[in-house]
Parts: sequence; C-alpha cells; structure tokens
Amino acid sequence: MDKPVLLTGAGGRVGQAILGHIGDAYDWRLLDREPLSDEKIPESVDQTNVYVADITDETAIRNAIEGVGAVIHLAGDPRPEAPWDSVLRNNIDGTQNMFEAAIDAGVEKFAFASSNHAVGAYETDERTPEMYRPHHEFRLDGTELARPSNLYGVSKATGETLGRYYHDHHDISVVNVRIGNLTQHHPPKEYERGQAMWLSYRDCAHLFACCIDADYDFEIVYGISDNDRKYYSIDRAREVLGYDPQDNSAEFTFEGEPLDEA
Amino acid sequence: MDKPVLLTGAGGRVGQAILGHIGDAYDWRLLDREPLSDEKIPESVDQTNVYVADITDETAIRNAIEGVGAVIHLAGDPRPEAPWDSVLRNNIDGTQNMFEAAIDAGVEKFAFASSNHAVGAYETDERTPEMYRPHHEFRLDGTELARPSNLYGVSKATGETLGRYYHDHHDISVVNVRIGNLTQHHPPKEYERGQAMWLSYRDCAHLFACCIDADYDFEIVYGISDNDRKYYSIDRAREVLGYDPQDNSAEFTFEGEPLDEA
Repeated sequence: MDKPVLLTGAGGRVGQAILGHIGDAYDWRLLDREPLSDEKIPESVDQTNVYVADITDETAIRNAIEGVGAVIHLAGDPRPEAPWDSVLRNNIDGTQNMFEAAIDAGVEKFAFASSNHAVGAYETDERTPEMYRPHHEFRLDGTELARPSNLYGVSKATGETLGRYYHDHHDISVVNVRIGNLTQHHPPKEYERGQAMWLSYRDCAHLFACCIDADYDFEIVYGISDNDRKYYSIDRAREVLGYDPQDNSAEFTFEGEPLDEA
Repeated sequence: MDKPVLLTGAGGRVGQAILGHIGDAYDWRLLDREPLSDEKIPESVDQTNVYVADITDETAIRNAIEGVGAVIHLAGDPRPEAPWDSVLRNNIDGTQNMFEAAIDAGVEKFAFASSNHAVGAYETDERTPEMYRPHHEFRLDGTELARPSNLYGVSKATGETLGRYYHDHHDISVVNVRIGNLTQHHPPKEYERGQAMWLSYRDCAHLFACCIDADYDFEIVYGISDNDRKYYSIDRAREVLGYDPQDNSAEFTFEGEPLDEA
C-alpha cells in the first residue's frame, strides 16, 4: 500500500496492538476521539497525521480520510454491555459515516473491526463448554448468519452488512474481521472460551497488515490465533488474506500448569 | 391467537392488504403515525383500539402493546431510496424500540416486515434478467447472508438481526418476512422482476395470518405468491408456517397477451 492508511480508534486496545507491531510499516494516519498520549503514537508518525475527531463528525472525518488508500476502522463503543443508544450512534451510524467518507475519498480497502459478539449466541447451553475444547468439531467459518450475543453484537453485524452494501455498490474492497479475545503477553487464564478465541497482539497486527496488503473483494474472517481450542475457522483468512498466525493458546502454561489449572 | 394482535403501520399498503382480507379474523390493535381514515379501519375494530403514535415513542408504544399476544411490525420508512438518517431512525431504532416493548409486555410472536431489498444485490448483472424467468434454477431460501440493494435494505437486514437477538435472549418467536412486490388486483406489467416476486393481497394477508397462528422459533421466509418466475423459495414458509399461496403471476394476462407483452 503506497498510500496512507487511516486507523480509527487508534488509541484503543486493538489499535495499540497493531501499532505496537507494525507502527513503522505504513504511512499511518491515526484518528481517535480522545487525544493520543505520546507513547501511543509510533515515532514514525508526526503530529500532522494524528486526528482528534468523533467518527460521527462528517467534516472532521473527511479531512482525515482525504488521499487515503486503506482504512482500518476500529472506532466505536467497544463494550459488549454497551446500551443501544450508544451502539446505534457510535457503531452503526459512525460506521455508515466512515463508509460514505471512504467512498467519496476513493479509498480502495476497508477493514472493519467486527466481533465474536456478532455470533456469540451460537454458543448455546447445549454446545458449551464442549465446543471450546480441542477436537470438538463445531466450527463457524463466516458463511453463517449473525447470532449476536448482545446489542453491541447487533451493531457489529450491522457494520458487516453496511460493508456488504458498500462493496456491492461501489468500487471498494471490504473485509470484516470478527475479532476474538485479544490479550497481551498470554491468553486468559481459567477461561476456556477466551482461550478458544484468543488473539495475540502480534497475530492481530499481522492479520490487519494482511487486510492492507492482500487483494480481496468482500470477506468475513475470524481474527484469532491458531488455537487448538478454536471453534472459529481461520481457513478463509489464510487462503484469501495470507494470514499465518504464530500463536496458539495451548502452548502457554503458568508455573508448569496448563492455563486452565493456572 | 386469543390475545389482541398489534399491527404497526396499519395504514400502509401491506397493512391494508392484511386488513382487507383478515380484518375481522383477529382482535386487532392498529397503530400508525398518521390518523387512519375510517375506510382504513375494519368495522370490527373500534376507535379505542386505534393508536396514533410514532414507533420511536417509547411511552406511546407501551400503551398500545400492553396485553398483546402477537405483533405484526410493518411501520417504518418504506421507500427503497430513503436516506440513511430516516432508515436509521424509523427502521432500525424504531424496530429495536418495538422489540424492547414487546419483550417487556410478554408478547409471544413477532412478525417483522423485512424486504426483498435485504437481498437485492444477489441480482447481479451476470444473473439478470435470466434469473427472473421460469425454469431458471437460481434460488434464495433465507439461509443466505444479506446483500442489500440500498440503505433501506441494510435497515431491513438489521431488523432481522435484531429479531435473531431478541429471540435468542428472550422467550419470543420471531419471523422475518422478506416481502416481494405487493400489488393489488394483478402483477406488475412489463416488469419481470416484479412478476418473479409478486405477492398478491390475499396471499399477503394469508401469510401474515400464518405468522400469527403457526408455532415457530426463529424464521426467515420469503413473502411472495407461487409465481412460475420465482427465484425466492417459499418452501420454508410452506413447511413451518403452513403458507399455501393461491396466486401465481404467470396466470395473468392482459387482453389475451402475457403480462410481459401487455
């Protein structure tokens, strides 16, 4: 990608995971609703490329997106328990605003941070906790209909559908990344579900680099490491995006004990 | 259904198709944003069961929905070309408001008027117009992901996802009816697509009666007559809801000529 890449929600957890690993690999523009402290900005990014703006503010977004080749859109209310009014405004309306601005600016690629919560209700009482364990055959692969865990998940499923619409009607590549459980340094302890959908920081950064560099039309992929426990397929991310994860929650122990007993 | 049935958007085209055929078959409560003229209200419905309210008005909705057993939710901006701000408010936020009120009121069944525009972008240049013709094998059956034609279609797909969420998390049956091309008396002329997805008024009323009477969990069905040209499957509506359409656009002629040449 020769053109700048706009990262919205740059100061959040996913944004920082990305910048911590590939912060010097692209010509970034960083956007966040809150001012970014210096330690959150890679050394290669100067202040003229850092924008403080709300994604529902059309004018501010249009300044940030001008001349951009790819957008990684992470901004939004990240709380699974967020109330409807907040996800309606920040996640649904905000994402539509980003797509409109991206189309007008001629952006080529748009990676949308969707969530495991778009499909969380597949984890029924009948299937859990067995589906979180290695060798269990249940898999979601991105072709299934949404089954949100919560209204936050509804908002993420809607963002995916907006991506489908803008891809079908405009010349823009769209990838929806259903992000799993992103934690730094090691997978969550005593939390099988989190281990099943663990995403390490370096795998997260690599996956979004793939979203910037690969050629695709419209995709829904799962953003998790190559965990033994996984019930999300990463085949599509491998095939289409060239995703090659390095981590697996099964390889972690604490004081010699498996994570579950740590 | 022994309890009252709330019909939102009762004065609109779909509402009137329903009331024109089954207006005396249920204990209706009618709701519309505009006052309903007398000819739009069945004789069996008295004025105390007619509500003038906007579906985004929580208090007004809660009065109308108290004690109701089933909701047929048609209200919303019906224009395929409706701007985002309108479908965001009227179709997305309004439908969420209806579901919240329905859950709080203990409503058992919720039929949502979705649209062919939720999946209109499957009609690609490569597939059309052949897919609109008899014997062409292309079928959508309700298991496919949304591919909206327009932002109105995005709002309808979101309403479907809200239904999935409320069904999964609350004790409510939900059916999303992707309504085709509803016209009175006869199918559209010289419009193959409209003939393929034609829905006669009597089939429309019968289908929504099935949504009130049948037992189901969560369904997505297509609301069209049994047209020779159809590319939407009606198998699921037949099997689960007992839908038994009487009409077929192929049976209509004008002055002895087929519809296409009329």
